[in-house]
Parts: sequence; structure tokens; C-alpha cells
Amino acid sequence: MKKARFPKDSYVTMTEFVLPNDTNTLNNLMGGRMMHWMDIVGAISAQRHCNRVVVTASVDNIQFRNPIKLGNVVTLEAKVTRAFNSSMEVNIIVHAEDIPAGFKQKTNEAFLTFVAVDQTGKPIDVPEVTPETEHEKFLWDGALRRRELRLILSGRMAPADATALKGIFDIKDTLYPAS
Amino acid sequence: MKKARFPKDSYVTMTEFVLPNDTNTLNNLMGGRMMHWMDIVGAISAQRHCNRVVVTASVDNIQFRNPIKLGNVVTLEAKVTRAFNSSMEVNIIVHAEDIPAGFKQKTNEAFLTFVAVDQTGKPIDVPEVTPETEHEKFLWDGALRRRELRLILSGRMAPADATALKGIFDIKDTLYPAS
Amino acid sequence: MKKARFPKDSYVTMTEFVLPNDTNTLNNLMGGRMMHWMDIVGAISAQRHCNRVVVTASVDNIQFRNPIKLGNVVTLEAKVTRAFNSSMEVNIIVHAEDIPAGFKQKTNEAFLTFVAVDQTGKPIDVPEVTPETEHEKFLWDGALRRRELRLILSGRMAPADATALKGIFDIKDTLYPAS
Amino acid sequence: MKKARFPKDSYVTMTEFVLPNDTNTLNNLMGGRMMHWMDIVGAISAQRHCNRVVVTASVDNIQFRNPIKLGNVVTLEAKVTRAFNSSMEVNIIVHAEDIPAGFKQKTNEAFLTFVAVDQTGKPIDVPEVTPETEHEKFLWDGALRRRELRLILSGRMAPADATALKGIFDIKDTLYPAS
Amino acid sequence: MKKARFPKDSYVTMTEFVLPNDTNTLNNLMGGRMMHWMDIVGAISAQRHCNRVVVTASVDNIQFRNPIKLGNVVTLEAKVTRAFNSSMEVNIIVHAEDIPAGFKQKTNEAFLTFVAVDQTGKPIDVPEVTPETEHEKFLWDGALRRRELRLILSGRMAPADATALKGIFDIKDTLYPAS
Amino acid sequence: MKKARFPKDSYVTMTEFVLPNDTNTLNNLMGGRMMHWMDIVGAISAQRHCNRVVVTASVDNIQFRNPIKLGNVVTLEAKVTRAFNSSMEVNIIVHAEDIPAGFKQKTNEAFLTFVAVDQTGKPIDVPEVTPETEHEKFLWDGALRRRELRLILSGRMAPADATALKGIFDIKDTLYPAS
Repeated sequence: MKKARFPKDSYVTMTEFVLPNDTNTLNNLMGGRMMHWMDIVGAISAQRHCNRVVVTASVDNIQFRNPIKLGNVVTLEAKVTRAFNSSMEVNIIVHAEDIPAGFKQKTNEAFLTFVAVDQTGKPIDVPEVTPETEHEKFLWDGALRRRELRLILSGRMAPADATALKGIFDIKDTLYPAS
Repeated sequence: MKKARFPKDSYVTMTEFVLPNDTNTLNNLMGGRMMHWMDIVGAISAQRHCNRVVVTASVDNIQFRNPIKLGNVVTLEAKVTRAFNSSMEVNIIVHAEDIPAGFKQKTNEAFLTFVAVDQTGKPIDVPEVTPETEHEKFLWDGALRRRELRLILSGRMAPADATALKGIFDIKDTLYPAS
Repeated sequence: MKKARFPKDSYVTMTEFVLPNDTNTLNNLMGGRMMHWMDIVGAISAQRHCNRVVVTASVDNIQFRNPIKLGNVVTLEAKVTRAFNSSMEVNIIVHAEDIPAGFKQKTNEAFLTFVAVDQTGKPIDVPEVTPETEHEKFLWDGALRRRELRLILSGRMAPADATALKGIFDIKDTLYPAS
Repeated sequence: MKKARFPKDSYVTMTEFVLPNDTNTLNNLMGGRMMHWMDIVGAISAQRHCNRVVVTASVDNIQFRNPIKLGNVVTLEAKVTRAFNSSMEVNIIVHAEDIPAGFKQKTNEAFLTFVAVDQTGKPIDVPEVTPETEHEKFLWDGALRRRELRLILSGRMAPADATALKGIFDIKDTLYPAS
Repeated sequence: MKKARFPKDSYVTMTEFVLPNDTNTLNNLMGGRMMHWMDIVGAISAQRHCNRVVVTASVDNIQFRNPIKLGNVVTLEAKVTRAFNSSMEVNIIVHAEDIPAGFKQKTNEAFLTFVAVDQTGKPIDVPEVTPETEHEKFLWDGALRRRELRLILSGRMAPADATALKGIFDIKDTLYPAS
Repeated sequence: MKKARFPKDSYVTMTEFVLPNDTNTLNNLMGGRMMHWMDIVGAISAQRHCNRVVVTASVDNIQFRNPIKLGNVVTLEAKVTRAFNSSMEVNIIVHAEDIPAGFKQKTNEAFLTFVAVDQTGKPIDVPEVTPETEHEKFLWDGALRRRELRLILSGRMAPADATALKGIFDIKDTLYPAS
């Protein structure tokens, strides 16, 4: 087994400037461009965790509630929350700023998973994650429930077998952080 | 209330050719590019349903299980499954083909939601959906449960209030189609 | 000889959303972007016909009469009309829509030819086309005259040898559909 | 009537480097990218002739006979051959070079037409062209026949009215230069 | 006068993944793409310092000594070193990593200047910089000499007046043409 | 030693049209895009001089004083001024035009250096430059001083050894950090 690593080892920040071609006819950033950026920053974070080539395995539910405008600066922060064999869950937090207006807000939070592969594309085991902060432990704990939900949603796990996910309907706000 | 419309009214097909800049270092299509295409075809489908400018509101869990190679042809098919006030759920099915090799497979299925807005960006009601085929009725039925899950995942609904989602853990495969 | 195929076997639809970078300073789609899309959808259609890698061989006269605006949805439909040894003629019909305005019009019609090649780039024979509908037969008939015109225009055929093209100046509208 | 201008007044050279995203799976420049470049250089040339905003009106038959490879340098030369009211015909010559290999060849020749418009998009008259060299006179003479062919091909002129085009089937090589 | 700000207030990190279209025929990142990224991260840093729209004013000499390969992760770090009326000097440090190979190196260092402008494009004063660390003071000190060199190189200052850069030039205007 | 070549042998013109995605929120061309174009035209010019694959080695100080607007035509002219072993200095002059307004101005002048490499990326000697015109001789003379300044700025030459740039530096290494 590879030596465990800390979430801070895979921390990556990406900054983008919203240009005309990133926007729709309302001059807002298109959701697809945001997802494209999330995929890139998430892949770099997962690479940092395992020092391997990685491929995108899944993206969890993402909400787009606050429009991001042309000329805004978008900051994406990613780190690996937990690893399962060859797969890694990456948490991505997005903020948008209108710097001249002095306005900044959190716009999105996402969980993507990536799989480490060797040069033939075959999955390969990655180091475990050792959470350090309270928030990292919170994300590490929730990762198992999110993983079960992904398996159920893709038809690869029977709901009855989702032991970690049991009780979700009694405890608010612990599966995914409210965004 | 606007007159209801059929899913076939919002049916859109988009075809893309995987070019070098769409791929990672394994020569596979990047997940972020795929999500960008899904967002565009979904937005066009939602536009067709409501004849309004639309903005992306959310994307549900997407799995990327089968790598898509450089030179493949990717076909995305979208249609609106159900509407809720100003929001529309769009189902997107993706196939990838290596045409010279005569190989085609379903690679992804996704549910995105879009909101119709007026020129000031304010949400505006859209027509209802009247499903026609068995599969369209199946998607229409599941839309309510998927909507509840989205609201729970984003912290906007207490799990105890998810009446349509009740029993999901007893009934396999009806929340999302297995992909 | 390979088994003949039907035009519907090579039917491809591509949908594009006109984004800011596709437009000129009048906010109209640039002709060059349209031709780029025609080339891609035509190549996919030709690939579907012959299951081979294809390269663009020629494009016939294209008219750009109706401006297409930023935010419009552009639909390109392509199918192979006829094959000659290793080359295929593809007919492409383009419509543009302003969906919120409920306005749709045919904007362009084009004929591109593609050549099937093996992995060394050497031309290779393709299946013949068996037209089914009246319109497909009309396009199949005209393909021979358009081919002669292409050969004359590129200096590879003496006009006196253009037997199929004889009489074109007496019969209006049968070489190319009015666009 | 505006003062006539010379073809050299509208002469424009554009140089492009063939990058990975410009190529197909054979590492050859895609025809659509070439047409996109032709459209841009042609529009600049037409702008130089008339000092107006211009829009693409048509492209004539283009042949793609010699593959252009990744890493090649592509040179496009454009000049206006003749004007008709608000429209201008632009002749575009394309060469491709593999500079390290010391290899250069003419790969394409094209005729595009552009229309000058005012800020409302309404066509507006442009200066006439006064050809100077023998080759410019040859192109100026042929422009009338090419214009008639365009009008016939688009169904806007009856072949019987194409007086300048009469005799084309007896005289080889004067409608379009052999490419 | 606006209140002074610290270099850390304008610190920005940008992470990019080298994709096929960013590379030349040797599969190395092109210098022009790197400069494009430097310009964006530098502009965001300058915006953070002054909360204004900014435009690029100059870039100082940049060396490209170590090739950056396809698939590498490039990290750009920017912060404002010193301000002069409406202009800000930004220091940019670039590292490239081959993460799977565990290899990281500093590849470039650059100084760009930006000018803050109001919505009419007119220059507007910005806050001063108060350096905190030894390295920030070192950069702050050097900024005056670099500024004089820029003014001399662009022909806007006589070498004799470059007191901070004392002794640097005996011969006016022959190093670089005035631009 | 390879036979010397003239600056005119490496003369290259590139023309670009400023499109929406090339611009910032003031509708001005971004400096990074300009530098990207300079890099491409400079590389082509250097390739023409030496008939080799080339890589960017450095860019000298560039000033951006006059904003270039959306819809402008940008013309870049490049030629090699002088060669030193495997490296070549390229002079690039940029003009921007608002053609409909009949307005043209010189906006930038830049010096980039490129190194010729063999297929393994190893530097390889290039032909010398024989200047012909007065201006070419002026640029050829200045190239030695600019080269010394580059070496000093990058910490590879002690100011005391800069004989052509005589008297320029009394204080080593404090103008720019060695990179």
C-alpha cells in the first residue's frame, strides 16, 4: 500500500477571466465552460495526489444559482477528499468576483471523481487520504455516502446495500454541503 | 398557463468530431469537453420547449465509464422530460462511434435542468410537458424524484419532505436509468 | 464492389449555437465558421457512408444570403448523394433559428465532395449510393453534371467532353437547387 | 460613383502555422479551417478595397488536392479582381510550405465574393476596379463569366441570359484558372 | 491618495494544463501561449491591487530556457511589486511540472506593467505598494530601475536622466528603436 | 559555415482580424493575444531564415501604448536582423487599422529571439545575416547590444563584460532577478 497523503498535498487553485466566448447571450458565463474548468482543475488535483495520469470518472450534482458575468474573475479551488482503490473524490469550490465592484461570492461547489491509470489506461491503486482539519474530516466522512449514492444512481449498487447512506433522510446537510 | 408541449418538440441532435484539442494525454476525450457539449445541446433543447432564453440551473450525477477516442464521432440527443414552473429537466443520451471500425456504444446519460428567463434574467413560467411514449412517461415520473433529490442535495429541502422520493431505497433503478 | 448503401445511412444532423467568437462586428455569423461546420458535418456523413477515414476534396459554390445572428441555433443536415470510385458527394442543408422569436429559415445549401483514404492516405473505393426518395433521385441525377462542372472548373476536363452537362443552358434549375 | 481603385490596393497576405487543432486524424489541415482562413483574408481584402464593413456573399468551387501537413506554413494572398455595385470578387491564392524540408507548393485557388454594407447591414456601392497587370486583366475579364455562373447556380439567372458565359464550353481554361 | 496595499493583497495563482493545441511540432508549449497566460494572470493581479479595469502597458524581457512539455501542469504566480501613479508592475513566476514523473522546475520569470483606467479608458491613480518581506522590498527597490530602463528602451527618457539606473547609457536611442 | 542570407529572405507578413474573443471588457485587443501572434510570425520568419524547426528563446521589452479595437485589422511584419550561432533575433513591427475609418497607426515594435533545433531539440548553427538596406544595417548593429542586455538581464553575463553595451551596469544582478 502506498503511503497516505494529506488533502493539502493535492490543493490546486485555478484562476480564469471570463472572456466573451465563455458567455451566453445574456453575457453570463455558460455552465458548460464552468464544468470544463472544474474538470481540468480536478484532474490536476487528483494528479497531485497520486502522481499518475488520471481520467474523469464522474461528476456529482452541481447547482448553478448565481450568474457569473463577463469580465468576472473565477477562482476554482480543488483538493482530494478521499481515495477508494484507484479512484479519488475531489472537492471543488468556486468563487466569482467582480473586482472593480469589490464583489465576491461563492457560486458553486462540486464533487468529481477521477481514476488513476497506467499508460495502457488500466486502473492502478492510489495512496489513501489522511484528513487533517475538521472540514477535511467532514468531507472524508461524507465521501463514503456520496460514493454509495453514485453507485446507486448508476445502477451498480442496490439501495439496500448502502449501509453508510442509511439514515440520510433523517440527517439534513451531511451528504453534500449546502451550496 | 401555456399550452403543454410534447418531448419530441424539444428533441435535438448534436454531432461532434473529437479533435486533438478535445483530448487528454491518453488521446481520450476530456470529461469537461463532453460536459460543455451537454450544456449546449441541453440549452438548445430547453429553448425549443419554451421559446425563451434559458440558463443552466443544475447538472445531475454523470458517469464517464467508456473512454472516447480521438477521431470518434460523438452524438448527443436531448429532450425535455418535464417542466416545473420556470425550470425544465432535459435528458441527454450520448453515443460514441469509431465509424471506420464500425463500433458504436452508449457512453453517457445525463439530466440537466435549465431555467427560462426574460431579458432581465428573471425566471418566467414555461409550458408543461405531455409525455407520449412509455419511455417518456417513465422519464416524466422519475423527474419528480430527481427534483427532490436535487433539492435535498443542495440543502433546499428536508429529506423528510421528499414524499416522491420515499421508498427509493426499496425500488432499484427508477430514480435514474442505469447508464 | 462493395454493397450499395442508401442516402439515409449517411444522414447526419449537427446543431450549433452561434457564440460571440463566431460572429463579425455586425454580430452576424462569419461565413468561414459556417464553412468549417459544413466541412465537419460533411466529413462525418461521408465516413458513415464508407466506414473509412475521409478527406475533403472540394466544395461547390455556396451562397450566403441571409445573415445568421448571435444566439441563433444553426442546424446542418448532411447526406451522401452519389459516389464515384473513391469520392462521395455530400449534400448539406443549413437552417438558422431564432428560437425565442419563433423564426426559422433555410440559409444555405452546399455540395462538398470527400475522398476515402486508407491509413497511408491512398484513395480507396467506396460503396455506391442507391437513392430511394424522389428528391434523392433528383440529387443523384444532378451529381454527374455537378461532377463534370467541377472537373471543368479545375481544368481537368475539356468542356466538349462534358456529355452530362450538355443542355444545362436550356434547362433551368437542375444543376443545383435554387438556394 | 466612387473613384476606381487598383487590385494592388486591396492586396493582403496572411500567414498561418498549422497547429494540432487544425488537423484531422491523418495530421492534415482540415478543409474547413482553410475555408475559415480564406474567408477572413478575403474579407480584409474587400474591406481594403471599399473602406466599408463587408459580409461574405458567396464562395466558388474550391478544390483540395494536395494535403497540407501539421507544422506547415500556409500563406494566403488575396486581392479584389472586380466590383459589381455593392459586391466585390476576391481572388485568393494559397501556398503551403514545409520550410525545414525546403518544399513549397500552390495548394488552392478560390474566388469569394463580399458585399459592402452600412451599419444597418444595407448594401452600399463600392469603387470600381482598374486592373493593371495582364493577369489582373485576365481575372477582371473572367469575373463577369464567374458572376453569371454564380447567378445561374443559385437560380437567379436563366442560363439563356448568360451572355458572357456563352462559348465557355468551347474555350478551355478561361472561367477559372486550373488549380 | 488611496491607502497603500500589500503585495500579498494582489497575489494570484493560475494553473494551466498543457493541451495539444498549446504545443508546437516538438510537443513543447509555445512561447506565445505562455505570454498569453502571463498577461491574463498579471491583469488579474493588477485588478486585485487597484479594484479597477486595467490594460497591459508593457512586458519586460522574458527568457524561455526550459521547454515545457505536452501534459505538463503550469503554475503562474503573480503579485504587484510597486505602483507609479496609474501604472503597476507585476512580477510573475512560472513553474512547470511533470506530475507523474515527480519533476518540477522554475521555467520563467517576467515583469509586466498594467495601467488602471476608468470606463472611458482614461488612466486613473492606484494605491501605493507597501512591501513586507525582504524579497518584496528587493523587488520594490528594483522596480524604479526597471521603470527607467523601460522608459529609455521606449525612447521616453534620456539615459542621462535615469538617475536610479545611473551610468547606464552613453548613447541615446540606438539600443532599441523608439516605438 | 552556412551561406549568409539576407533579411528580406525571412520577411513574413501576417494579418489578423480582431474578433470578440481577442478582446477585453473595454473591447480592446488583449496584450497576450498580440504576443501570441508575435510569437507565431516571429517563429515563421526564423524558420524561413534557417530552414529548421525553431523554438522561442526570449522576447525583449514590448510597449502597448495604443489600444487596438474590436474589428481592427492587425498587420505584423517580421524579419531576422542578425544571427548568433544557433540563435536569431527577429524584428517585428505591428500596425493596426480601422479600415472603414481610414485610420492606420504603428502600435508596437518587438524583438524576439529564436533558436534553431534538430529533431532531438538540440541547438544547431544557422546562417549569418547580411544586411542590405540602411535600416537593416542599423538593426544588425544594435543586435549585439540588445544581445548583451538580454544576457545581463538574465544573469548570464557580467555587466563588465558587455563591451558593446559599454558602461551600462555598475551593479550586477539587482535590476532583474536571474531566471
